Amino acid sequence: MIVEAIAVGTELLLGHTVNSNAALIGSRLADAGLEHHFSTAVGDHPGRMVDAIRLAMGRADAVILTGGIGPTQDDLTREAICEATGRPMLYSDEYASRLRRWWAARGREMPDSNLKQAEYPEGATLLDNPKGTAPAIQLEHEGVVIFALPGVPAELEVLLDKYVLPLLRERSGEGVVLSRVIRTYGQSESRVAEMLADIFEETGNPSMAFLASAAEIKVRLTAHADTEAGAEALIAPFEAAVRERMGSLVFGIDDETIESIVLRMAEEKGWTLATAESATGGKVAARITAVPGASRVFRGAIVAYQDDVKKMNLSVGDDLIAEHGVVSEPVAMAMAEGVARALDADVGIAITGSAGPEPLEEAAGTMVVAVRTPEGTMARTLRLPGDRERVRTYTSTGALHMARLAMAGKWWSGRPKDGRWV
Amino acid sequence: MIVEAIAVGTELLLGHTVNSNAALIGSRLADAGLEHHFSTAVGDHPGRMVDAIRLAMGRADAVILTGGIGPTQDDLTREAICEATGRPMLYSDEYASRLRRWWAARGREMPDSNLKQAEYPEGATLLDNPKGTAPAIQLEHEGVVIFALPGVPAELEVLLDKYVLPLLRERSGEGVVLSRVIRTYGQSESRVAEMLADIFEETGNPSMAFLASAAEIKVRLTAHADTEAGAEALIAPFEAAVRERMGSLVFGIDDETIESIVLRMAEEKGWTLATAESATGGKVAARITAVPGASRVFRGAIVAYQDDVKKMNLSVGDDLIAEHGVVSEPVAMAMAEGVARALDADVGIAITGSAGPEPLEEAAGTMVVAVRTPEGTMARTLRLPGDRERVRTYTSTGALHMARLAMAGKWWSGRPKDGRWV
Repeated sequence: MIVEAIAVGTELLLGHTVNSNAALIGSRLADAGLEHHFSTAVGDHPGRMVDAIRLAMGRADAVILTGGIGPTQDDLTREAICEATGRPMLYSDEYASRLRRWWAARGREMPDSNLKQAEYPEGATLLDNPKGTAPAIQLEHEGVVIFALPGVPAELEVLLDKYVLPLLRERSGEGVVLSRVIRTYGQSESRVAEMLADIFEETGNPSMAFLASAAEIKVRLTAHADTEAGAEALIAPFEAAVRERMGSLVFGIDDETIESIVLRMAEEKGWTLATAESATGGKVAARITAVPGASRVFRGAIVAYQDDVKKMNLSVGDDLIAEHGVVSEPVAMAMAEGVARALDADVGIAITGSAGPEPLEEAAGTMVVAVRTPEGTMARTLRLPGDRERVRTYTSTGALHMARLAMAGKWWSGRPKDGRWV
Repeated sequence: MIVEAIAVGTELLLGHTVNSNAALIGSRLADAGLEHHFSTAVGDHPGRMVDAIRLAMGRADAVILTGGIGPTQDDLTREAICEATGRPMLYSDEYASRLRRWWAARGREMPDSNLKQAEYPEGATLLDNPKGTAPAIQLEHEGVVIFALPGVPAELEVLLDKYVLPLLRERSGEGVVLSRVIRTYGQSESRVAEMLADIFEETGNPSMAFLASAAEIKVRLTAHADTEAGAEALIAPFEAAVRERMGSLVFGIDDETIESIVLRMAEEKGWTLATAESATGGKVAARITAVPGASRVFRGAIVAYQDDVKKMNLSVGDDLIAEHGVVSEPVAMAMAEGVARALDADVGIAITGSAGPEPLEEAAGTMVVAVRTPEGTMARTLRLPGDRERVRTYTSTGALHMARLAMAGKWWSGRPKDGRWV
């Protein structure tokens, strides 16, 4: 069964509102194993709304409209459905009475404009909206089922779950769709795609997709099957093949973040964490402390933005800076060790480098990351493209991944070793 | 001129990614005075991409595609444009050499799959992408101009501003649209709207809009005129009226951020800055150091996430914590003074509080901000609604605004004083 979504509202086209309803509908349809080919936003304009509805009816089995069913002059979804299907508008005395009772129960007089919400296209069913006064509408027309739902996300979500998805799933009889996201770090999107090219060739159901987000590359497997167990069984061998191929480039699955994994690893080892940051200016600490429960493990951070703070508060030696320069592996290692000492932590994560002003093509940010654990201290130099903010973001992501590998007793080399990615 | 947007990516239809690019494009088109009737999302499916492109070409003067121009097997936008326009795919040796140089400059070997980014439909222009390796594409076909832009928001934004909007505005020949954003902090959106209600009544050209973003409220004036000077003359009296009414609630205009303003004020006074952060975990420092040139003023930060770090590294007295609790104005003031001393800075900005759901002794959402300047130390308690990340963001914004007012010798009271907002 193919479902198409149409979001109604000029505010979406003006960019005043981000169309998060489209993502909500998309994820619910995917969970229900329903196909979803197009999602459109259209303004509060009768002619263009009719065009969008007719187009969707021509290429989908079900159309989900959101927005435009409120009481004001620019709420035109009911009218557009009437025109797109050639049906007259009717009026529900019963719903009008309900509306009056709803307002009366709240001790308020109902503005007459609200009676518009008792209107419906001939043949439609009014669906009760437990979170608002605008009823939703369900209409079957020439084999296509049309829903008109409120644009308020909380109301939309309730009505999707209560009416729309049960009906569509029952009609489709098509089982489930399951996705597994394998999160990797350490190689570019194109390199990951090359590493997995032969596995990709064998995909179909499940399908495989690559998604780059900051420095992390996600490999997504999506399977269709009759049951969740069946979908899981289709995904399992591909997931295993990807994990085998990519080794410790894989750091997590689905919604796991590197921050949460670093915290969990530290907690399992009984280690506490601290960061010493120069160019990232506290970004790594801010990311770690965004995770609830971080205080069980995270001691704190010293942001040493001017060089003498590195000397004064992290005990980085004058001689070391003079000999190697501030942006160097020896200085980063001294910072990692210095912050572990100063804040009495087991693991110190340090960053020194120059994020640059706003260079584009030529000047790459040179950043050095070091990690101190009770088992040793290691450093690595990164040369990163992009502007200041990108360099800072990629460096903080890199530092967290290096902490993961250092705590696991591994250290990312970027090169295969004995045929495996370590 | 009518412009249509098409976002390419199965992740949008699966709801894994919210289509914020559509809102970005929408707001830029609105600012430029261009019409925008439909915005569509389509998956990485060749046939459906071609359908979407043909449909848009039939009803718009310009089509902006985003996504699907990366190097992997599921990046199919170039191919879809070729098919929709009946043009062959060509290959740019020059761009291929640039890609090789780009990778070589970073000391890495380029995966061959990246050469896909040197492909383009016959007749297209490759637009340089200053933030990534995938070039954007511009193609004129039967009177419609088609752009294929990257889906990465930061890359998209740069390319929209650099190439797409100037070209579309020039072609539309519709005069000049000028916006002035007046940035305010300290009152809610509805209160700001009330304060300016009579000025709003007089608007038309320019129009006035209110935009809430985190804790800051922007007042945007947008004027249409034949020339930039004409638009500026329309805006000027309204801008002056808003500033007069709102006093020091106004902190900047257009793209000025509170971070950049705090740094500029400190530099003008010859003062250095440091932060001491508990619940915000380094977020304020990270925001300050995101501004190029921050190192002239910003000394560093101490993130004291566990309580004994506050005592050890910020010299907050045991007795003070015992008497008032960690989340208290006396402790925040001691932290502000402690960090100024520890990092040898003139201004100390301190935050202590509980962002939840790790409750300390105070309710989650209770945050205390203090600022130490050479002229004195002040503190303020904020009670913020929302989840952990929202509380942390609002608090760091609040702390920066309090630093601004403290350095200006004012302290935000939220109340008018002698008829003016101080």
